[in-house]
Amino acid sequence: MNAIEKLQESVKEKSSVLCVGLDSDLNKIPDTFSKSMAGLLDFNIEIINATKDLAASFKINFAFYEQYGVEGFSVLKETMKAIPNNIFTIADAKRADIGNTSKSYAKSIFDFFDADSITVNPYMGIDSLEPFFEYKNKMVFVLALTSNPGSYDFQRLLSDGKPIYKHVVERTTNIYSNEQLGFVVGATHPKELEDTRNIAKNYTFLIPGVGAQGGDIQAVLKANQSDNALINVSRAIIYPEIKTSFIDDVRERALYYSQALRNI
Amino acid sequence: MNAIEKLQESVKEKSSVLCVGLDSDLNKIPDTFSKSMAGLLDFNIEIINATKDLAASFKINFAFYEQYGVEGFSVLKETMKAIPNNIFTIADAKRADIGNTSKSYAKSIFDFFDADSITVNPYMGIDSLEPFFEYKNKMVFVLALTSNPGSYDFQRLLSDGKPIYKHVVERTTNIYSNEQLGFVVGATHPKELEDTRNIAKNYTFLIPGVGAQGGDIQAVLKANQSDNALINVSRAIIYPEIKTSFIDDVRERALYYSQALRNI
Repeated sequence: MNAIEKLQESVKEKSSVLCVGLDSDLNKIPDTFSKSMAGLLDFNIEIINATKDLAASFKINFAFYEQYGVEGFSVLKETMKAIPNNIFTIADAKRADIGNTSKSYAKSIFDFFDADSITVNPYMGIDSLEPFFEYKNKMVFVLALTSNPGSYDFQRLLSDGKPIYKHVVERTTNIYSNEQLGFVVGATHPKELEDTRNIAKNYTFLIPGVGAQGGDIQAVLKANQSDNALINVSRAIIYPEIKTSFIDDVRERALYYSQALRNI
Repeated sequence: MNAIEKLQESVKEKSSVLCVGLDSDLNKIPDTFSKSMAGLLDFNIEIINATKDLAASFKINFAFYEQYGVEGFSVLKETMKAIPNNIFTIADAKRADIGNTSKSYAKSIFDFFDADSITVNPYMGIDSLEPFFEYKNKMVFVLALTSNPGSYDFQRLLSDGKPIYKHVVERTTNIYSNEQLGFVVGATHPKELEDTRNIAKNYTFLIPGVGAQGGDIQAVLKANQSDNALINVSRAIIYPEIKTSFIDDVRERALYYSQALRNI
């Protein structure tokens, strides 16, 4: 099964476009987990088990594991293995480099970690992205307009009357089909999300920025107007305000977002 | 000692701006090394020992290690440890993400791997770069104009009459001093290298693209016109055409580039 088919099945089965982000950090996990790499893995496994019937996808933020070096990379691998096979996975690694180097990054993400998809940075151009697309059964989410304040610095500079991120979207949609290509578009820019949807109608959008970053769910759903999306929530699910017990609160938050993000 | 002081001392001691790139790959190392992670580390140690009196810097390309997963990350760490303390190191990792994520990448590169500097991708804007600059004794090389064909795709789009990479250079030089900030400018663009030098006179340029990628040394030295540079050679040194013995040929190539890249 291709990644896009797995994604569509997963969204259909969960009736939701919820993606749970595993931004796991020893400084933030509850005291019931040991402050060790084993504790970090336990935390991930509990989150996965508490949300796997609700999440269409899990997104693994590589930085949070790389900060612990070799052992962190090992927890990342074990976490990937703990995710049920029928749930779509995103390696949120934001890689890209010259061609022969991107080829090695693609091997890492797709062969070693066995992720279904990756996030990539387009600054270095098409030849830096191509090695990821050579894995025909995988998906590649290209950063278009990101959710952070810095998205105003370069992504929105106008060239030929169009912001740079639209050049990125147009250039890549001219080359790659929606079976492999998707875009990262931040929930914090609903108007631009709608514009981008108009020029990339059938492409999957990975939409971060709901929850801790303040993106508004209703505005995002209205702007996106498509089933071809995954809306990511990380901190607002995995670090809930504790009311009953940690894992019950995680589940309550995941249920809330799952229902708020029912596919249309 | 700050990273910039270490870099300047290292360039002075070697009388050369040569940076040796450790793009080490099991498929390319000579048959005398075992085709294993131990063999890859041996290869790196032999390259380091054969070139450490000539190289002002070693650049570690993270992708080549990440392709081997957890064990590759371990070889990367051991390689960093094998580099003499007085030689400037570059984590060629091309990272950057939203602020709290970049903070974790910075921990990985500077705390865990203990690199003196990192390469970062500016697409996500200033707040995605800032966490790296918070390590005041480290250096940050921002991608400006890269050496690959894809550098024409987005980096050179004009906004307000100026290519995007110049916006990146101007914006970042307005914020950060040359004690921490440097730029990646490809050897394959000597004219633009000269232009960029004019707007970032005292900043260190990390210049890849000499050797296998075809950048011309004389054109680069003429365009750069400054001591504030490291010129990287990877494949042309670490995978020499074998004439005598592997390590003698590596040394011969490193000597050739060391002398060709004598600081002015």
